[in-house]
Amino acid sequence: MSLPNTPRLLLGPGPSPVSARVAAALAAPQRSHLDPELVAQLDRIRGALLRVFRADPAAAALAISGTGTSGMEAVIANLTRPGSRALVVVTGYFGERLATMLARYGADVTCVEGEWGRAIDPAAVEARLKEATFDLVAVVHAETSTGVCNPVADIARLAHAHDALVIVDAVTSLGAMPLEVAAWGVDACYSCSQKGLGAPSGMAPVVFSPRALERLVDCRSFYLDLNLLLDYWVRRKYHHTISAPLVYALAEALGEVEDEGLEARWERHRMVHEAFVEAMARLGLTLLPPPPERLWSLNTVRVPAGVDEARVRKQLLERESIEIGAGLGPLAGQIFRIGLMGSGATLENVERLSTALAAALQESRV
Amino acid sequence: MSLPNTPRLLLGPGPSPVSARVAAALAAPQRSHLDPELVAQLDRIRGALLRVFRADPAAAALAISGTGTSGMEAVIANLTRPGSRALVVVTGYFGERLATMLARYGADVTCVEGEWGRAIDPAAVEARLKEATFDLVAVVHAETSTGVCNPVADIARLAHAHDALVIVDAVTSLGAMPLEVAAWGVDACYSCSQKGLGAPSGMAPVVFSPRALERLVDCRSFYLDLNLLLDYWVRRKYHHTISAPLVYALAEALGEVEDEGLEARWERHRMVHEAFVEAMARLGLTLLPPPPERLWSLNTVRVPAGVDEARVRKQLLERESIEIGAGLGPLAGQIFRIGLMGSGATLENVERLSTALAAALQESRV
Repeated sequence: MSLPNTPRLLLGPGPSPVSARVAAALAAPQRSHLDPELVAQLDRIRGALLRVFRADPAAAALAISGTGTSGMEAVIANLTRPGSRALVVVTGYFGERLATMLARYGADVTCVEGEWGRAIDPAAVEARLKEATFDLVAVVHAETSTGVCNPVADIARLAHAHDALVIVDAVTSLGAMPLEVAAWGVDACYSCSQKGLGAPSGMAPVVFSPRALERLVDCRSFYLDLNLLLDYWVRRKYHHTISAPLVYALAEALGEVEDEGLEARWERHRMVHEAFVEAMARLGLTLLPPPPERLWSLNTVRVPAGVDEARVRKQLLERESIEIGAGLGPLAGQIFRIGLMGSGATLENVERLSTALAAALQESRV
Repeated sequence: MSLPNTPRLLLGPGPSPVSARVAAALAAPQRSHLDPELVAQLDRIRGALLRVFRADPAAAALAISGTGTSGMEAVIANLTRPGSRALVVVTGYFGERLATMLARYGADVTCVEGEWGRAIDPAAVEARLKEATFDLVAVVHAETSTGVCNPVADIARLAHAHDALVIVDAVTSLGAMPLEVAAWGVDACYSCSQKGLGAPSGMAPVVFSPRALERLVDCRSFYLDLNLLLDYWVRRKYHHTISAPLVYALAEALGEVEDEGLEARWERHRMVHEAFVEAMARLGLTLLPPPPERLWSLNTVRVPAGVDEARVRKQLLERESIEIGAGLGPLAGQIFRIGLMGSGATLENVERLSTALAAALQESRV
């Protein structure tokens, strides 16, 4: 069996397309995990991550050798002990995953539930914080299942007023829309390599604030133990054999972010998102969240009545080699998830997708 | 800062060199984690892993999205509950790591300790099995810190006679020397992608026997939960966003193993190891383990008296762009660790290294 050998336009919820520069990085000559030329790339990544997260220079930033889900688990494993009281904002699939994972690590979990497709009301979070004491408040910034942006700055301010640590999932926001780890008071934040940053998946950027570093627990996981990871990333002590191609790709992807300028990159994502919304309106299609709550990176488009949504996706994939995503959980069959992220966030892609989608919708009437 | 752009001959304890075919695979067009063309590669990998592990067709084989250390943790996390009684063979650094990780997952750990540089005596394991009851017996097949091969078949037979599950670390043996998961009665085995298989690091092949699958515990880790991983690998249900380049590289590396033939590949490693030992003898150098206990994949060479070992490694790296490894733990400064693994196991590399090493030793007298 051979490998895929034709291009595919990746406009689903991630991975996003890889640029020529990042693709070339994958093929750079191998180095081992302790080679001076490899660890120099780790230093480069650490510095760039502090900047892309907008973190305190005294924070600890590195990339877990795994996907975004391993980043979520690393943050939880290093900050949760049995009996930790955790308040989790659940407005979609990934909020549920946060709650599940915190419970696996022994936390006493309370959920603030919100409608799938809407942002959480900070007043609902405040009400819970007044009712009980929490060690941790966890929230998904960009809820990939619904296309909604939660008000992290407001939630973090409330959580800090009650002395809780703030954990934020930035898997679908990092590099694509405003995220201000230091200014908002986020204590631990994780993301992935394959969305706003535009690298392949397999590395999970994480950052821990100075306050979080003072509250690390005895980590049960060895692979995800932050102190052991810092031994490697900072002190060059063997912990695991990091993947050179993924390090190279992430380093170059972060280099592209810096060359473009982080704020210019956010603005590009915003502008492309607005153009996408207008293009959908011309097709008579609407987005699930109200305008102020929409992500710029990932759009959730309601499937019109009388359309076979699986057939639409299949036609786009097979006829146009364009991938878009399906709904998850209660939104399965209800929405398309369309990502315009990283190097994929272009007006050209909006145009190409709109044209293909119009044809696919026409042919998928039931 | 730019990426490495010169070749380096990787003859340390891993990663091993990547062949042109595997390097090309990294650059194949991206697909998402649920793309039909990507999941077809997962099926290809599952089948090839059952064959390279020599596992029961009813076993579960897949690759964890992480390094070999994540494979170790995945096996432990899915088979250890608080209070599990574990007997661990410790003859080096990675045996110690097994004991540490089992303890982190709540196991009651008993160690059978052996000399660093020697294989364990199965009688020592048998004595402990007679003294107490154990749920798990864990052993490193190819101890990367000492260059020694432990008698896994004997230990597994003893463990089965006492109804314990057998966990085996095959990080430095898979694809390079005989490993017979089914015939030896190994219940759970993990490895890495970047040694005998010749892919870059970042994927950890694991296999669980039918007996192990009946004894899975409630896994605390979400990322490493075998049932969730099987939901993805077998049932196509989203769990994490697997890294397409690493999947491609592992699939092609396993394809190379099958094209060569597994037994022919073992024989190539044996033959190259023998040639290496002879070449070292010509330089007056000896290996740490006695001949019958030596790995074919990784050679541990005693540093001769009066030589600055760090200077030798530095000179090889900087002048010849050849990497070899240093000793770990109590063997730091005592040995060089020289891997001839995967596509790096060639007579040409033995010759090139011997010549360079002779010069470096000459210039590193203290």
